[in-house]
Amino acid sequence: MKEKGFKSLVTLEEARDKFFSSFDTVEKTTTLPLTKAGGRITAEEILAPRPAPHYRRAAMDGFAVVASDTFGASQSSPNRIRVGEKVEPGVATPVHTGGLVPEEADGVLKIEETKKQAKKLDVYSSVAPGDNVSPIGEDVKRGDTLLEKGNEINPAHLGLLRSLGVEEVPVAEKPVITVIPTGEELVSPGEEPGPGQTIQSNGIMIAEYARSCGGSPVEDEVLSDQPDDLKKALSQKVEGSDAIVFTGGSSVGRRDRIVEVLEKEGEVLVHGVAIQPGKPLGLAAVEEVPVIALPGYPVATLAGAYFFLKPLIAQMTGWQAREKTTTVQVAKKIHSPLGKLSLVRVTVTEGKAYPLRVSGSGVLSSVTRSDGFVLVPRDSEGLAAGKETELHYWR
Amino acid sequence: MKEKGFKSLVTLEEARDKFFSSFDTVEKTTTLPLTKAGGRITAEEILAPRPAPHYRRAAMDGFAVVASDTFGASQSSPNRIRVGEKVEPGVATPVHTGGLVPEEADGVLKIEETKKQAKKLDVYSSVAPGDNVSPIGEDVKRGDTLLEKGNEINPAHLGLLRSLGVEEVPVAEKPVITVIPTGEELVSPGEEPGPGQTIQSNGIMIAEYARSCGGSPVEDEVLSDQPDDLKKALSQKVEGSDAIVFTGGSSVGRRDRIVEVLEKEGEVLVHGVAIQPGKPLGLAAVEEVPVIALPGYPVATLAGAYFFLKPLIAQMTGWQAREKTTTVQVAKKIHSPLGKLSLVRVTVTEGKAYPLRVSGSGVLSSVTRSDGFVLVPRDSEGLAAGKETELHYWR
Repeated sequence: MKEKGFKSLVTLEEARDKFFSSFDTVEKTTTLPLTKAGGRITAEEILAPRPAPHYRRAAMDGFAVVASDTFGASQSSPNRIRVGEKVEPGVATPVHTGGLVPEEADGVLKIEETKKQAKKLDVYSSVAPGDNVSPIGEDVKRGDTLLEKGNEINPAHLGLLRSLGVEEVPVAEKPVITVIPTGEELVSPGEEPGPGQTIQSNGIMIAEYARSCGGSPVEDEVLSDQPDDLKKALSQKVEGSDAIVFTGGSSVGRRDRIVEVLEKEGEVLVHGVAIQPGKPLGLAAVEEVPVIALPGYPVATLAGAYFFLKPLIAQMTGWQAREKTTTVQVAKKIHSPLGKLSLVRVTVTEGKAYPLRVSGSGVLSSVTRSDGFVLVPRDSEGLAAGKETELHYWR
Repeated sequence: MKEKGFKSLVTLEEARDKFFSSFDTVEKTTTLPLTKAGGRITAEEILAPRPAPHYRRAAMDGFAVVASDTFGASQSSPNRIRVGEKVEPGVATPVHTGGLVPEEADGVLKIEETKKQAKKLDVYSSVAPGDNVSPIGEDVKRGDTLLEKGNEINPAHLGLLRSLGVEEVPVAEKPVITVIPTGEELVSPGEEPGPGQTIQSNGIMIAEYARSCGGSPVEDEVLSDQPDDLKKALSQKVEGSDAIVFTGGSSVGRRDRIVEVLEKEGEVLVHGVAIQPGKPLGLAAVEEVPVIALPGYPVATLAGAYFFLKPLIAQMTGWQAREKTTTVQVAKKIHSPLGKLSLVRVTVTEGKAYPLRVSGSGVLSSVTRSDGFVLVPRDSEGLAAGKETELHYWR
């Protein structure tokens, strides 16, 4: 009755390389109006269809002038010109910041440097040709890159695109992520769990995680551990899914049958990764659809999603995700096992990271109480107090 | 024709204090099923309705035993007991990790420490009472706080709530933010701007910004600078809005009429804030509805939204926003004017922040090209090269 172990653990880097290189970067794209594009990922580089400004723009409130009319002017010895409808030598026209500088003008004189009396204008300083005039294309030239491919479209992007007349954007489709929770001991939400039973909760967690990473999740009904049920679900879901995530049953115990099923139905690329939590994790390809078999312990489930599902969605959408981390100082020694990359939940107070006392990877409240996590390298037994490290966030 | 100036600039802190203390923290709440609660803000503390585990749970695969049956056992001198259906002195029962530990057992013996032959079980080590048994409530006690009030509900929260049988969550309603862009020089999206004209683009930017902060934005049609039009829009929109944001026309020029209208229709709390960009900014209350009049230059508009709209939405929803910042090193001296808190757009490469060369607050591409911004205090003329500072993100 001794459990068989994993054939061998591979490192996180090896597992990622093997998994992500096994699939073409499928980027399904669609075109959305700007009003629906917020938060989506650009599927192509977006170029400026016109320059900004698209006309010679006044940078100050004042008067459009022929610059040479102002040469030599000073506070003590002002030049006198006229204000008129049309700029010409000796005649200036009022302009507002942002307004059009008439063709005949080659400078804008600040209003503070003038005094106007009826049609007469005293000029108290000189402007050089080009002063206070933004030439066409000063901000953005026609054909400039407005957004790179793989950008997450934010409020400023929308403003920029709209101001340049771009009203439609090619974006990546959200990949359909089918989430299938498994486990004999699980009861459905709304049911009362008996002793030894647990309410199935990984499904909603991973579905929401996939959504927050830009996927379109579909949460399936909970399945038993029976290979026939698993096989049936797999063959039904491969069609119509861009990726499939199982939770539970990914280890090597008597009731861990998913990897066995995946071996028959497709190709298992990795089983067992040198990370903690999250070790009993399987990665497979079934009919060219990526399949991630996550362990059932909630913290391990989430860690596996962080290491594999988030980058998978990024690969599928072309998302150039830039992870935000914060530098923190280890407040007290963090212990971790040699041989595995450890993800250690911490709370942070005044820039200092305190490891959470946790009794195992089953305790999701250790995640919800944490401010994020720090990583301890595989070849290290921990992080010393005082060491600076990066705080990672779950998404 | 000289423009009148601001009466006086107030500091950011003064402006915030005055504005946010002028409104009751209106928290409209609603109850949502868990499946719709992701990303929303909890309106109340949420307590555990039951403990977890809710039964005595095995922490290992092995055998539930009466601990005293194992006392004295060792590798060289195993104890021998029996395997049966019911635990009693001398009889053990198989259990799986996560399974129920029978009432009669007070310990779980790891499978690796045993050898089973038919009904006979050799025990190679001893367990103390309680070993490998998670008592009821070990992870979460009944009545423990699962989520604080004001938490943004994330995937792990959803998993935790579901696992404890919480299927409905009280959350803050999303405040309705009416966005009204103004300006004579603006044309509507889809129209071709003539010389001196600009496509109205602040509306979509601020609407998306409000959405990303948890608001429910309504973008209005662009308005002229005419006081009558502004007054009419204001009186129509006060009803049905939790807050109103104008963009453009908030300064003190001839065409900046919004603050004048706000003075007549309500109370102007602040006009002119010592921040850059964003100085010509008005804050008012009209029939107890907060009104933010943002300047029209896109970068100033966004800066004003960052400093006032984001915290306003947080106040209205009770969102305990924890801003994520990253420590960076100033790569080259950053100059900024004394007397104003400056928001300096930067790009970051290998932890070093480089200020972006920008020609003004009209250039939104300086935001989209930036990785975020750093703040230079009001009493400082810049940040020296090499100094550590925090990188802020626009949302």
